[in-house]
Amino acid sequence: MTTAVMGAGSWGTTFAQVVADAGHPVTLWARRPEVAREIAEEHTNARYLPGLVLNKAITATADPAAALAGADTVVLAVPAQSLRDNLEAWAGLIPADAVLVSLMKGVERSTGMRMSEVIADAAGASPERIAVVSGPNLAREIADRQPTATVVASASLATAEAVADLTANAYFRPYTNADVVGVELGGAVKNIIALSVGIADGQGLGDNSKASIITRGLAETSRLAMAMGADAQTLSGLAGLGDLVATCASPLSRNRSFGRLLGEGLSVEEATERTRQVAEGVKSSPAVLALGEAHGVELPITQAVSAVIDGTLDVGELAGVLLSRKRKHEGLER
Amino acid sequence: MTTAVMGAGSWGTTFAQVVADAGHPVTLWARRPEVAREIAEEHTNARYLPGLVLNKAITATADPAAALAGADTVVLAVPAQSLRDNLEAWAGLIPADAVLVSLMKGVERSTGMRMSEVIADAAGASPERIAVVSGPNLAREIADRQPTATVVASASLATAEAVADLTANAYFRPYTNADVVGVELGGAVKNIIALSVGIADGQGLGDNSKASIITRGLAETSRLAMAMGADAQTLSGLAGLGDLVATCASPLSRNRSFGRLLGEGLSVEEATERTRQVAEGVKSSPAVLALGEAHGVELPITQAVSAVIDGTLDVGELAGVLLSRKRKHEGLER
Repeated sequence: MTTAVMGAGSWGTTFAQVVADAGHPVTLWARRPEVAREIAEEHTNARYLPGLVLNKAITATADPAAALAGADTVVLAVPAQSLRDNLEAWAGLIPADAVLVSLMKGVERSTGMRMSEVIADAAGASPERIAVVSGPNLAREIADRQPTATVVASASLATAEAVADLTANAYFRPYTNADVVGVELGGAVKNIIALSVGIADGQGLGDNSKASIITRGLAETSRLAMAMGADAQTLSGLAGLGDLVATCASPLSRNRSFGRLLGEGLSVEEATERTRQVAEGVKSSPAVLALGEAHGVELPITQAVSAVIDGTLDVGELAGVLLSRKRKHEGLER
Repeated sequence: MTTAVMGAGSWGTTFAQVVADAGHPVTLWARRPEVAREIAEEHTNARYLPGLVLNKAITATADPAAALAGADTVVLAVPAQSLRDNLEAWAGLIPADAVLVSLMKGVERSTGMRMSEVIADAAGASPERIAVVSGPNLAREIADRQPTATVVASASLATAEAVADLTANAYFRPYTNADVVGVELGGAVKNIIALSVGIADGQGLGDNSKASIITRGLAETSRLAMAMGADAQTLSGLAGLGDLVATCASPLSRNRSFGRLLGEGLSVEEATERTRQVAEGVKSSPAVLALGEAHGVELPITQAVSAVIDGTLDVGELAGVLLSRKRKHEGLER
């Protein structure tokens, strides 16, 4: 029995190495044959993890059938908005009893579904077979085997523990949690908060302002998650506060970097051209905003970031919107 | 009527400028006559705020009687461990009805008292006359008039609102809060968490590890504060999470910088010599640890940092202690 990691971007490749370093067989699927060949033959993934020699025990293929055959664990590490299409393309290839693990942070634009909901829907898997991994997990640091903690969430404690056992090694320390909603929302909304912190950064605002935005961003994330049934402690934990702080501290974060370009005055199109991708927070923000409306929760930062993306709010006015609040008594607002 | 700011370090000087920029008269007391003269005549405080020209409306004196005469608000901005001695030296000089504002973050070593408790005890002031100001408030950024939010806490809402009115200006935005215990503990324990993040930094650990320490540090702070009667929301707010994140993000933080030197292998004595001061977290940590024992709350990070300072734990073992936890289920630990 083996683990299939589907997606050879920086996090998917790194996660395959975490499993290999834990002593378990793993096959990494890459969409592009030349990437699969590079990983299999040269043990590198130069585009996403430049300078790193991967664990040679990782096998790689561009054939999804080969990767999925006989896998007892299938780790999904594709772009959030392409998850459904990928699962549909792989219908019949995923072993019926395999545990499905989501590494993705986002909300599906067309349905407002969290990633685990998309998996349940598109792969016809029961929640007990699905786990979500999220935390302060900058991929490059983990690829370099720096100590990292993470959260494995599942409706089934046995499933969460199986994934924790599969990944625990000398530098990667998984903690289990039953709160799938809290873990997924922490990760998805974080991308949007990181965009806003990046915008503030690009405008030259200091650490006081950015810390205020992070504080209010986590409060906003917690309000939404709790309205959807999450536990407040999850958001104060590694998959909420921890992930948010790591992302906002790091120059490696794509969402923060994308936001910085917006703050420096680039349009969404120009920032996309510069970074060669649209940051996930840009894609998820309308869906998160819709979740807020559906659950009667105000999301002022998500709303302001969405308005900047839509072009209905000038980026120069964002900080004023984020840093001013009407009520003067702190306790009443959160 | 006027405001006296007692202490011309970076935060005291900056706070005097906040009041002056809000349009209110303010006198700044400096312990050393040459500093008072520099501020009064050259409108600079070159040691603490190099390169800045202060608001010329700030008057300055080295005579505490002259600073305190007729003051309706007395802002205390002296080193935490010298507060009691200063208040005793000023006995009879502080107007009987003046509001006393604490800018200090720490716990008195000899008594375990929070700063507002020391003020009540040594100045004989009722809690309704005392306010505490704390938040993501790196002084240099505020001195440069960058947008900043803060929390003003008092047992009396009227007192908190008066201090908010005194300080609110175009870049400084105070929010009132009744939870004095939560606001003070957030600030005091933050110094210790910042030390531990600095140590991790000095050891070359990455943003994943540091984010985990920050997450567990805030959890530890919240547990202690709540055991002492604080509101959980205060710790999730600007004076808890906000202050912690600003401090840990900033190269300007003294506690983080001191910790970094420890992490690089310097002894407490060597780090003190290098920085020409002992970081407040070093001084407060035994008192915070004693508060934890008195209230039956485990404080693993404070304990580990204290052991490093005492020389009973090698700094190289700190990360292992901070990043490893026995229980595998996230929810159970906090």
